[in-house]
Amino acid sequence: GAAARAWAWLLACVAAAWGRVAGFAREVWRIGADDPRKVVHGLKVGLSLALVSIFYYTRPLYDGVGGAATWAIMTVVAVFEYTVGGSVQKSFNRAVATASAGVLALGVHWVADKTGEFEPYILTGSLFLLAAAATFSRFIPTVKAQFDYGVTIFILTYNLVAVSGYRVESVDELAALVQQRISTIAIGILTCLAVAIFVCPVWAGQELHLLTTRNMDKLAAALQGCVEHYFAEGPAAQPQARSDCDRCVLNSMAYEDEQVNLALWEPAHGRFGFCHSYDQYGKVGAAMRACACCVEALSSCASAETQAPEHVKRLLRDACTRAGARCAQVLREASRSVATMTASSRALDVAVADMNTAVHELQGDMRSLPSMLAETSLVMDTMPVFTVGSLMVEIAVRVQGIVDVVNKLAACF
Amino acid sequence: GAAARAWAWLLACVAAAWGRVAGFAREVWRIGADDPRKVVHGLKVGLSLALVSIFYYTRPLYDGVGGAATWAIMTVVAVFEYTVGGSVQKSFNRAVATASAGVLALGVHWVADKTGEFEPYILTGSLFLLAAAATFSRFIPTVKAQFDYGVTIFILTYNLVAVSGYRVESVDELAALVQQRISTIAIGILTCLAVAIFVCPVWAGQELHLLTTRNMDKLAAALQGCVEHYFAEGPAAQPQARSDCDRCVLNSMAYEDEQVNLALWEPAHGRFGFCHSYDQYGKVGAAMRACACCVEALSSCASAETQAPEHVKRLLRDACTRAGARCAQVLREASRSVATMTASSRALDVAVADMNTAVHELQGDMRSLPSMLAETSLVMDTMPVFTVGSLMVEIAVRVQGIVDVVNKLAACF
Repeated sequence: GAAARAWAWLLACVAAAWGRVAGFAREVWRIGADDPRKVVHGLKVGLSLALVSIFYYTRPLYDGVGGAATWAIMTVVAVFEYTVGGSVQKSFNRAVATASAGVLALGVHWVADKTGEFEPYILTGSLFLLAAAATFSRFIPTVKAQFDYGVTIFILTYNLVAVSGYRVESVDELAALVQQRISTIAIGILTCLAVAIFVCPVWAGQELHLLTTRNMDKLAAALQGCVEHYFAEGPAAQPQARSDCDRCVLNSMAYEDEQVNLALWEPAHGRFGFCHSYDQYGKVGAAMRACACCVEALSSCASAETQAPEHVKRLLRDACTRAGARCAQVLREASRSVATMTASSRALDVAVADMNTAVHELQGDMRSLPSMLAETSLVMDTMPVFTVGSLMVEIAVRVQGIVDVVNKLAACF
Repeated sequence: GAAARAWAWLLACVAAAWGRVAGFAREVWRIGADDPRKVVHGLKVGLSLALVSIFYYTRPLYDGVGGAATWAIMTVVAVFEYTVGGSVQKSFNRAVATASAGVLALGVHWVADKTGEFEPYILTGSLFLLAAAATFSRFIPTVKAQFDYGVTIFILTYNLVAVSGYRVESVDELAALVQQRISTIAIGILTCLAVAIFVCPVWAGQELHLLTTRNMDKLAAALQGCVEHYFAEGPAAQPQARSDCDRCVLNSMAYEDEQVNLALWEPAHGRFGFCHSYDQYGKVGAAMRACACCVEALSSCASAETQAPEHVKRLLRDACTRAGARCAQVLREASRSVATMTASSRALDVAVADMNTAVHELQGDMRSLPSMLAETSLVMDTMPVFTVGSLMVEIAVRVQGIVDVVNKLAACF
């Protein structure tokens, strides 16, 4: 009856909800399993908060800093980032912005105090102007990239000190407030940086390094897969998955730029010196994107509707697949040269020479193509294959461009 | 003598420093002049801070909220974003995270209070676990995109309440602290949203809309410029500037995704309903990037070293430039259809039909190309032109793809 139907409906609802929850849990589990460092990062944040909260629980420490210990907690929460570079950048921003805004606010407060009844107007006016100027400065690209957080903290501190100063009796009391705030922020920053650097550190420089090599390998796989798929005989695999691969190379610019900006803040670690040539990674990324764009065009030409007949394809197959494989090989060697941080290796030089030979052969085959097929109707059939061939040549040019920047990068190691 | 040289050196230094400062000032001026809304945004932030600081200067208001008024200032600084969507998103995050973390911390504090001497351990343990879990949750893409700030505030509030609760006498006092904090945050949020919405609002949805139409126009210009440059006779202009144009289409993904995420939070405004079909803009962007990739490949083929001789180029010139111009025309019509928010216009349909005709003619010309040049050596010369022609056909396919998503978007208006 109705009760049974209601019961069945309820069961279905619960099952659907359970399915969604289970799916979400699987997704979360996958994120953690793919990169356990993310779980470790969570534990690190918990650890540094627990360390800072000791200031509340132990009497002598609490007496030292008092209620201002909340600032230490805030600092840890705000400053702790996934990479060491991110944490250092935010710490620097927070420390410098707090100190400069605090001192400036004390000065303005002292001046305003002398004027007597105009105090609120001077304070509000300076607050308005400084906040407007600081907010506008965030639109300047350099400020946005490196000092965005510092500007926020500058406005915040200036406001807190200048405005709450109005209700404080003397300038000395206000100075004590500023000094206390700075010292608790220092405690927070030191805790945070100590945990970030000494407990399983994640370096932005290394992330950038890995991203570059991984993208290069992906590009190599996409290129080779695309060429092989085009010239494959019989039922071929679908090329969609490969196309996604070079799309993630194309879309990695924002993440890459961010990592470059953060890596600049990192102290020397492992084989990365202080201010390692991180800018060069950005150039390698740009060269890779130019190449990925061409691979993308090639893969769309390869899956176009008007296909050349099999026997025409066969004429360029060997030269083209060889050129594709050699280009991929160059990319893999370049990736290895970056990964091992060795100055331009012999293997890379050999691979480049092989690639150039293969490309010359391909060009030769393309040139002799019309003579092999005398009839003009057949010449028409060769056109799509020819397009693929000339894109292949263009890709080789861009791979050469990647090798050039990789060599410049390798010279910095 | 030495003094004169030192003087000259000093002057040179001052001149160089002055030059850098002047250059920076020009850059800043240009940013403001290009988009005066950025200057207005700075003034808006200053205005809302001045409004909030009134709570400090007027006795009755100050007596109402007391020293907690600092939280209102912090809220305004932290929550005020360039777009209305950004401000609403952060306000929501801050309000919900503060309330939920406050209530949770009160509950845990109440439980810990009953256990007596174990209180610090229970508090620290819960703090550690919650902070670790919350930090890890930021790696989940949805949380990262929409609730990143909320997670920070959740950890922060939980810590402040739970830990500072240890030094507070009674639970009632702690509850009053939480309630006071929530009410001052509400004051900050209301001030901020009122200023953001009623004083020259900047809508993320409109930004997204403008970005889409602007990118489409840029793509049209890049495409037409590239084709015309290739077939131009005599000394041609350098194609670099155009290539940069479609590169900014290629690299706009991160900014676009952000705007889509923010626009979803905006109330209905102008011709944009609540939860307007902002996702569709993302799809239009993806289609444009696919097309820009092909234009990029075309422009690199057009500037390749091996060029077809002039008389061969001339055979395809008319058909190719016409196809390019028609494709660009379709893009411009599509851009206008998006800009005016009209359902698929007749002009767009006509432009698409024109484009298809032009592409058919181009394909016909390409097919008859070999028969026009009987000698096989000459056939070889046609190959580069043929490559440009087939890329042109591929671009037309992708322009058609853009039109399809634009029509889907227009159906939602």
